[in-house]
Formats: sequence, structure tokens, C-alpha cells
Amino acid sequence: MGSGVAFNRDASNGENIFYGEYLTNAQGENVVSGARTPQPIADLARENPKIYNQLEKVRKILEKHYREMMDIEFTIQQGKLYMLQCRVGKRTAFAAIKIAVDMVKEKLISEKEALLRIEPDQLNQLLRPIFDPSEKRKAIDAGRLLAKGLNAGPGAACGRVVFNAPDAEEWKRRGEKIILTRIETSPEDIKGMNAAEGILTGRGGMTSHAALVARQMGKVCVAGCSALQIDYLKREIQADGKIVREGDYISIDGTTGEVLLGQVQTRPSEVLQVLLDRTLRPSEAPVYQEYARMMNWADKYRVLKIRTNADQPDQARTAVAFGAEGIGLCRTEHMFFGEGKIGPMREMILADTKEQRRKALVKLLPLQRRDFEGIFEAMGGRPVTIRTIDPPLHEFVPHEESAQRELALQMGISYEKVHQRVESLHEFNPMLGFRGCRLGIIYPEITEMQSRAIFEAASNVQRRGIKVEPEVMIPLVGNVKELDHQATIVKAVADEVMKKDNVRLNYLVGTMIEVPRGALTADEIAKTAEFFSFGTNDLTQTTLGVSRDDAGRFLVPYVQMEIYSKDPFDALDREGVGELMKIAVAKGRSSRPNLKIGICGEHGGEPSSVEFCHLLQQDYVSCSPFRVPIARLAAARAAIKNVESSKTNSKKSVRKKVRKTKKSKIRASKART
Amino acid sequence: MGSGVAFNRDASNGENIFYGEYLTNAQGENVVSGARTPQPIADLARENPKIYNQLEKVRKILEKHYREMMDIEFTIQQGKLYMLQCRVGKRTAFAAIKIAVDMVKEKLISEKEALLRIEPDQLNQLLRPIFDPSEKRKAIDAGRLLAKGLNAGPGAACGRVVFNAPDAEEWKRRGEKIILTRIETSPEDIKGMNAAEGILTGRGGMTSHAALVARQMGKVCVAGCSALQIDYLKREIQADGKIVREGDYISIDGTTGEVLLGQVQTRPSEVLQVLLDRTLRPSEAPVYQEYARMMNWADKYRVLKIRTNADQPDQARTAVAFGAEGIGLCRTEHMFFGEGKIGPMREMILADTKEQRRKALVKLLPLQRRDFEGIFEAMGGRPVTIRTIDPPLHEFVPHEESAQRELALQMGISYEKVHQRVESLHEFNPMLGFRGCRLGIIYPEITEMQSRAIFEAASNVQRRGIKVEPEVMIPLVGNVKELDHQATIVKAVADEVMKKDNVRLNYLVGTMIEVPRGALTADEIAKTAEFFSFGTNDLTQTTLGVSRDDAGRFLVPYVQMEIYSKDPFDALDREGVGELMKIAVAKGRSSRPNLKIGICGEHGGEPSSVEFCHLLQQDYVSCSPFRVPIARLAAARAAIKNVESSKTNSKKSVRKKVRKTKKSKIRASKART
Repeated sequence: MGSGVAFNRDASNGENIFYGEYLTNAQGENVVSGARTPQPIADLARENPKIYNQLEKVRKILEKHYREMMDIEFTIQQGKLYMLQCRVGKRTAFAAIKIAVDMVKEKLISEKEALLRIEPDQLNQLLRPIFDPSEKRKAIDAGRLLAKGLNAGPGAACGRVVFNAPDAEEWKRRGEKIILTRIETSPEDIKGMNAAEGILTGRGGMTSHAALVARQMGKVCVAGCSALQIDYLKREIQADGKIVREGDYISIDGTTGEVLLGQVQTRPSEVLQVLLDRTLRPSEAPVYQEYARMMNWADKYRVLKIRTNADQPDQARTAVAFGAEGIGLCRTEHMFFGEGKIGPMREMILADTKEQRRKALVKLLPLQRRDFEGIFEAMGGRPVTIRTIDPPLHEFVPHEESAQRELALQMGISYEKVHQRVESLHEFNPMLGFRGCRLGIIYPEITEMQSRAIFEAASNVQRRGIKVEPEVMIPLVGNVKELDHQATIVKAVADEVMKKDNVRLNYLVGTMIEVPRGALTADEIAKTAEFFSFGTNDLTQTTLGVSRDDAGRFLVPYVQMEIYSKDPFDALDREGVGELMKIAVAKGRSSRPNLKIGICGEHGGEPSSVEFCHLLQQDYVSCSPFRVPIARLAAARAAIKNVESSKTNSKKSVRKKVRKTKKSKIRASKART
Repeated sequence: MGSGVAFNRDASNGENIFYGEYLTNAQGENVVSGARTPQPIADLARENPKIYNQLEKVRKILEKHYREMMDIEFTIQQGKLYMLQCRVGKRTAFAAIKIAVDMVKEKLISEKEALLRIEPDQLNQLLRPIFDPSEKRKAIDAGRLLAKGLNAGPGAACGRVVFNAPDAEEWKRRGEKIILTRIETSPEDIKGMNAAEGILTGRGGMTSHAALVARQMGKVCVAGCSALQIDYLKREIQADGKIVREGDYISIDGTTGEVLLGQVQTRPSEVLQVLLDRTLRPSEAPVYQEYARMMNWADKYRVLKIRTNADQPDQARTAVAFGAEGIGLCRTEHMFFGEGKIGPMREMILADTKEQRRKALVKLLPLQRRDFEGIFEAMGGRPVTIRTIDPPLHEFVPHEESAQRELALQMGISYEKVHQRVESLHEFNPMLGFRGCRLGIIYPEITEMQSRAIFEAASNVQRRGIKVEPEVMIPLVGNVKELDHQATIVKAVADEVMKKDNVRLNYLVGTMIEVPRGALTADEIAKTAEFFSFGTNDLTQTTLGVSRDDAGRFLVPYVQMEIYSKDPFDALDREGVGELMKIAVAKGRSSRPNLKIGICGEHGGEPSSVEFCHLLQQDYVSCSPFRVPIARLAAARAAIKNVESSKTNSKKSVRKKVRKTKKSKIRASKART
């Protein structure tokens, strides 16, 4: 008699082996709860070869039928094998990708099916750091290997030990990196697990609560590390004659199951080593190869272009390595914080007259030009959308007395004047204040300087033989006349530079759509704008009337109360913000059928939001460099899903079949959420 | 030889007399510029009866043709009368109303035409104070009458003398009431005139720049007061052996032309004396009679109902006297600042636990209930829309250390705690923060207390035999689930009170539409909401992404640059905010065809916005008590205009004819703007 859970492929690394655990004299829930550590399935082959062979047969039938990695529960009673249920199995990102790629090779599934099986956020795990092998070697040689458990959630994590979920949350809030260490976990620990860098348990197997949840969350996890004696009362771990107390550092390797004392240095993931550090060749990197294959398929099926939000050449290069096809948002204000730049910027802001402002801007011009040259070079001919200055000016000036006094000295004006000028920049609601194109309209000389820096840089780089495609983006436009005002300046400067340098520059002038009025009057705005980019961070703030900075007190409870199903700053609010985007796309293209439309809010890297952008027939999404692979995959899935779902009479997708099958089965155990 | 300007009716008081001025040996522009003070037209009858009779004949022809008060320019050359142009004449509000009412009596025009001839904002002038006759008598008896000029802009004004427009603006900014005193005015003085309570000139007639502009602006004006010697350099006026220096008080009576030294007490307008103070009987008040007749016509033709924004019984009574048919917005938070209320309110805000909060709310309940009883009684059966608490809590707590220490003592907790709790209420963008229904959702006990106060008050008043129609309005709803949450509480409390008191109360639960998401999802919201009220102040802030408090630095220049034709916080932005309102009305009524729709933002009392609400087929507009007559007239005009304009094949309205005529004439002089 006994019970077990088995997978037709390895849930941890995706290898095509029969993989699982069982417990003699036990019910299914005993395996799942982690109260006892079960035996590997291989032991069953020795102990009861007849049953094992039956199970092997079932495994093959199921794999052929479902063409998926399945989680199979069984029990053995009076020498007879009973199948309790099977459902699609949870797996690590590594396993998910390997299984999908392998199944395409094995002709079990198509490329499209493979893409639909990888949740885009899982790619995060592939980009996560691993321990530096030589550092880990050294640690082990120095006797710092404390114990070994199950490699339940891959990746490397390092942090301070805490022993319960509330502490995990609390320490995290204080900015600490922590490893949540529990004898076993239960659903009440979810938040603490989420706050942790990694999870370490003393009991339970690869299918225990801790292991399942960690994999879902993409957390590093070492489970069932039975050598540890975890004492909640004393808040310490004893193992191998050593004691680890609350707050001590440990390092856990979720790919090997090792637990090490102290901190071990991590290094980039295999994918990053190949793409960014170039310390690994693709041929030496099997995970990279699977990643690359998957990304190739994604690029084949997606319709949306993928751009990145990057303000510096190094960010731009990273994004290109991840597959970015352009920059969708280059924020020029970040550049002002660079060395030598904040001084003239502050002079510009504190200037009393246009003349003084111009003098400061003259100092900024060569610095901005150099920045843009770097960006254009890094992007090697890909389009670059540059946003003119956006944030309220008070963000650039010092607010402490000492810094104000120093600035006064530098500028040769009185402290009182600096102080008074800074005070006058105070706003009640800076989010809705003197910012965006409002700055460039009241101080046109700023837009003029920025345009000059952009076009002179473009001209310089183009004359070095590198193609340049600048797209000048005016922020916070709610009225076409605002855009007209700024576009006139941009175009006049462009003409002037082209004439002076005798070059022809291809450029566009467009706008962000980030206040509702911009969306509502998009037909008018598109008469001037050659492109739109949805600034969905601000558009969400204004459409919902919610300041992101102040939302904590009600938005978190709102999501708990299901007023919003997800935080609208994470996943695009389709009913509200999305409705405005729909209006903007329809009206914008009614005036300008070939209007280029993108998104550069943080939603541009969030899969369900990317899908929505696909449905709106946008041209591109733009996201932070590290989310570019996620956006590529999300875009491909959106294209595949929405073609599939529109083929009403064609055969249903595998995904749907699987989902149906899942529902019709009765769950034997409810312990695993 | 000579030139003149004449009117077929008196531009100042509307009397049916031939009225005007002329100058011998002069061009038309000399009359207008005010450089010389012209002679009354009556003199022409004596000096040149033949010409005068010709002019009289022309006057009659023009009056019959245009059925309007006309501004007629003529010149006399070599004994022959030449008509230079005629156009609709500018007039005071008093004159406009009298002329319109008279012309209806004379069957020259219809009631509808009469209504179309009064600009709603002109009614402001009728509600303006006049000098208390006995106080003025006393001042004159005391020898304070300095001089007498032309009664160019009716009403009474009192203020400090300044001598140029920049000073006028500057003093006004400092909070001073000023009388702008000029030898003559020119277009450069417009802003200074706007800043002044009244305008006094030494030269020029009833048609001089000063007089025309003052009437357009609705300013009190005494023009052509030639007895004054105005010295810009010494900054003083000499007259009758007396000296008035810059900063001295004077009082001017624009209805009689008198200029008095010092301050003379003013008293309410005739209309207010009849309606509010009841110190005058209608039969003794001719201006009131014309006002009342006009208002009766307005009520006959308007479709929109007119409500008022009132938080106190006295405001409610004033509004009813002006014709309000209900309260469209009763802000409950203002009530919390009343005596005895701010203490428990602060306790409630600073409470740590639900229990403490409930204890404070128990103290507030009877106070709020009493407030609501007063309002319900004052409104005598008219519907009353009560908004649950709306502003961010930090508005209720003290921010200075001394006040915080005092509060700590009162509450028996430490100053540090009070201080820390107040600090924690700080928000980056309070406009978009923890306010509106968000408060009632996180602290449902507040909504519960407020609902209880409303329904207990309703029950008490109803049992005294006064009908009560409460409409509970939930603010800042962007998602139907927010409204559902609050409506459940309101209805539960209503049920409880009705059961306890064994009464039947008719009430509605509805919402403000004041964030774009509310408008965009109005179909969902209307499934719960029994009425919508557009909160166009906040809706303008969120739709445009403009904080009203911070807009000064760019919105004023924006209007100057014609990015917006008017300040969108004054006149509703039809293209942006209006578009969202359109969506909300259409979607809302698609779910609930009989959805009651109103507006309670400040736009509810602005004529062009009222017209837009009429076009949207709203049920009512709500405005401050003193704007109720303006809204009544604006609503009538909107109804008449838009029926007229939809009758495409019917005869065109007089107004249009006149406008066309105006355009086809060539202006002889351009001096008068």
C-alpha cells in the first residue's frame, strides 16, 4: 500500500525522465503536505517492479494523449495501481522551456503550442543570477556547506535568516534581503514567501507546498532539507554542529539544493553571460540555446514590435542584446543628473530672465548632445524616441539648506534667493502641475535647446555613417495646440541643423497620450502628431484619479476586496484606461491612417497588457531592457491566441483541451495552493 | 459740421428716450475717445432742429426694422446728415432687461427674443449692492459730495483711489478694493479696470472707452467728471478745494454719477431687498418687477431644472428665494468644521482602532443629524442631494505644533502620537489620494454614521409633516464595485431607520461622475446608481491632468496664447471634459433609461456650460445660490436657441439677422474696444 505523485518529465530541469515520489503506507495528501519526506519513484522500480511498469505504461499513454508535462497522482491498494487524477504539472521556467523545446523536436507539439506553454514572466527566472562557481567552490572548501536539500526552485539566493512570514515581510520592508526558513510552509506563509529572496524548508518534497508555490512565484527554493534542526522558539537552525541564528546570512542554491553559511557571490545567468557579458559561448550554454530557440519562434509569430525604455547607452546595448528593435522612451531628464549637468540645470531653473536661462542652456547643450550621440550609436540605426523634459522642476533643485547655500555660492546669488525660488516651485499636486510640455511652452528655449542637441547629435552620428531615426516625443499633451506649439520649435531647429550641416535627417514628431483629454481629442492631435505613445503610468493615474505615490492606503485593500482584480499599475485596466486607449487609436487613425502607435508605460512589459496592445493593433510596446524577452514572448502569444480564438470553426487549441480535461477531473487533494 | 453717437433707448437705464451725444467740429472718433466731453443730443434739437428731426425719423425707422436698441453713428457735413453705421448697442443690465421687457409689452419682440437678448451674466449687476439712500443722504449733507459725472455704469462702489492700471492690479492682489481713477482710459487699462471695484474718469462721455468697457464688464463707472483735476504725478485729485490722495477712500454711484469722499455704506440690490431681506415690497420695486417677469419667462421655456449647492439652511433659503428647485450638492464635510464638531472629527481621524473611531463617530452623529434636519426643513420637500465625506483627512487636522499639542491634551494622548499621525496623512498628490469614497470604503463606519444621520433626520422631519427627498451621493467613484460597497451600507441603514421609526422614506443612491473612469464605465455604474451628478471641477482636473491649485503658472498664459479659448475651470471644456460627459450620459442611460443626471461643479452656474448640459439632455444643473437666476436664464436661452437652431427651414431668429447686419456694415471707428 502507498501513494505517490509522478511527472512524465522532470519538473525542475525539464529532462525527459520519469520523475516523482511516493510514500508507503500513506494517503496522497501525506506526500503533498511535506509532513514526511517521500522516496524517489526510482525506489518503486526496485520495491515493486510490476506496479512500476504499469505506471510507466500509463505515463506513456498520458504523454501521448496530453502532449504535456503532467502531474499524475496514484495510489496502490492491495497490490493494485489506481490512478487518482492527472493535470498539467507545475514546473520551473527552465523545465517549462526545455519541455516545450523538446516536445517540438519530438514533434509532439507545434512551435505555437510551445510558445503558449511558457508564461512570459517565467523568463525572469532564466535571467536571474546564479552563484559564481569558483566562489561556491571556495565556500565549500572552507567548510561552509551546511546541508543539502531538494533543488525545488532554481537560481541562487543569499540573505538573512528569518523564521516566519510576518518577520519576512517586516524585514523586507526595512530593505533587508531575507531567506524564509520554515519546517514546512502553508498557505498562510504566502506573503512571507513573496517577500523572501529564497525559501528553505526542513521537511517536504519536490511537490510540497513550499516547492510548488516557490516555482509558481519564481523563487529560489531548497526544500526537505532534513539535516536542519529548525527551532522556531530559539530562532535558530542547528546542523552539522553549527548554529545559524535569526539575522545570520545564508546562501541557498535552488538548482543543486545546497545550503551554505554566509554570503556567496552570485553571477549572471547563463543567458546573460552569453548575451551581455559574453563570458560564455552559445555552444557552451544549453539553457541559452533553448531561450534563443524560443525567442526565435516568438519573433516569427509576433506582430508587435518590441522597443525599450533606455536613457543611457549601456541600457540601450543591454536592450538590443535582449532583442529590442528601438527605443520607445528615452527620458532626457535623467541625463540632467549626470556629472557636470545638474549645475547648469539648476542655474536654468533658478534663472530670473530668459537671458539667464539661455546662458545656462548653452552650457547644457553640448552635454545633452553627447548623451544623444551615445544613444544613437548604441542603437545603430534603430529608431529612438526621445521625450523632451517632463518632470516638475522642483525635482531638480536641492531642498536642504546646506545644499541650497552651496548652490547660492556657486551661482553667486544669495541663499535667500535660492531658497525662495525653490519654495516657489512647491506644488500641491505636482503630478498635475507645471510639468511635461507645459514647461516647454512657458520656456520654449528649453525645447529649443533639447531639439538642437537631438538634431546636432543625429547629424554628427549620421555623418559617421550610422543611420539615425530620431522621434521627438512631446509629453503630457492634452490639446493639439500644445503639440503644435512645440512641434513648430522642433521642426524649425531640425531645418536649421540640416541646412547648417547640409544633411538630410529622417525624423518624426509625436506625442505621449497620458492624460484623458489627449485620448479624447486624438483625432485633432493626430493631425500634427506622427506617432502616439501611451504613457499608461500617468494615464492610469489620471483616468482613475489615483496618485500612485499615495495609493497604498486604499489600492492594496481594493485589490484584496476585488474592487480591482489586479493592481491597475501592474496590469493595464482594460475597462477604464483601455477604453480611452481604444478611443485614442480609433480617433487617431481616423485622422492619420498610418499613425504609429506604441506604449511606453511600465505596462509595456506586462504580458496581459502587451496582449491588449496587440488587440488594439498598436505598432510596438516599449519596456525596460530586462523585460524585452518577456514582451517578445507575450507579443507572440497574443498573436497566436487571438488568431486561434478568431478561428471559430477550426479545431480547438491544445490549451483549451487541456483546460477542459483539468476541470472534468476531481481533485484528490486540495492541499496544494 | 459735427459728429455723434445716438441710441434709440437709454443705454444706462433702458428708458424709451432718444439718447446720445454729439460734438461740433469733430470726427466720430473724437466722441468715442473721450478726449473732449460731448454735448447731449437734446442740444442738437435746439441748435439744428432740421437735422435733429431727420435723426428722429431715422431712429424710428431703425427701431422698427431692428426691433432692438441700436448704436447709431452719424455725421453732419455742410448741413447734411450722413448715417455712418448702426449696430446693436451696448447697455447696462438694467437697460437690457428694461428694453427687453418693454419691447415685449410694445409687441415689438416675443418673450423668447427678449430672453435671448439678456446675457445671463448681466443679471449679476441686478444683484449688486447699491448705496444705502439714507447713508448717502447723510454723506451729502456732511459736505462729502465731491463732484458729479456721467452715470456710465450703474451700481455702488467704494474703494481706495489708484491712478493707473498696474497699481490697480497690484493693490487688488494685496486684497484692497480700489477705484481706478484716470483722466481717460485706453485699451491698455483693461486689466486695471477689471481689477477695480469702479472706474472714475475726468473726461469722456457715455460712449467713451471707459463707459463702454465698464458696462461690458459690469463695472460701476462714473465718466466725464470734469470737475476733477486729476494729477498723475502728484497722485492726487483736486476738486472743490479738496484733495484726494492715492489710497484715500472714495465712493462712486454709477447710477447717479455722484462721487463722494470716504466710504458710504452700501445695501443690497432691489432684487435682494425684495427676495431676501424682504425690506421692499415688489410693488415698490420696478427693477425687481422686470427681473421677476424675465425669470417667469425663463422658467416657462427652460427644460433643465435648477438646483443649488448649499451646505447650510441659510444658504438653502437664499437659493430657494432665487428659484432653486432642490439641492444638487450638500457637502457634509463643511459641517464638520462647525462648533463642537471639529473635536470629535479629529478624534475620529486620529483613532487607532475601529472602536475608537466608532466612539468619535457616536459623538458626531447627533450633530450631523441636526444639520440635515435644518437643511431638509429649509428645502421644504424639494430634493436634497447629500454627498458623503469627500476631502482628504489631513484637511481636518491641525498642522502647527501648538494646535497639535492642544489636541493631544484634549485627547489624552501624547503630542508625538498626534504629530506622527498627522504626518502620516501627508500625501504627494492629495487631489488623487485617499479621499472620496475611498475613505468610506476603508472606514465603512463613517459612511454608516453619515447615512444614519441623513435617514434619522429625514424620518424626524417627515414626521413633522414636511416631505423629504434625500439623495445620497457617493463621491469619486471610478468603479461600480466602489459604489456597490457604499450603496449596500446606505441601504442597510435606511432600512434599519425606516423599520425603527416605522416610516417610509423615498430616497435615491447615486454617485458623482468626477474621474474619467467613472464616465468610461458609466453603463456598469448606472446599474447601481439611481442618479449621476457631474463633478466637473475634479473631472476637469483629471481629464486635463491639471491641478487647479497649481495651474496659475501655465493656465493663464495658455488662455492668453489661445491654447484654451477660456479657462476650462470657468467654462466647461466641451471637446475634452464634455466628450467624457457625453459618453457617460449615453452609457449611463443605456443601462438605466430614466437615470437622473445633473452637474454640481462650478460650471453649473456658467451660461455656456449650462447650455452644454441642456444639449446633453441632463435633468438639472446645480450652482451656488447667487448664480441660480443666471442658471435659470441660461437654461431658458439654451432651450430656445437649440429649438430655434434645429428649425432649419423656419424664419431665422432676430439675433442672427442683427448679427449679419452688423458684419455687413463698415465700422467708422475702431477706437472702442
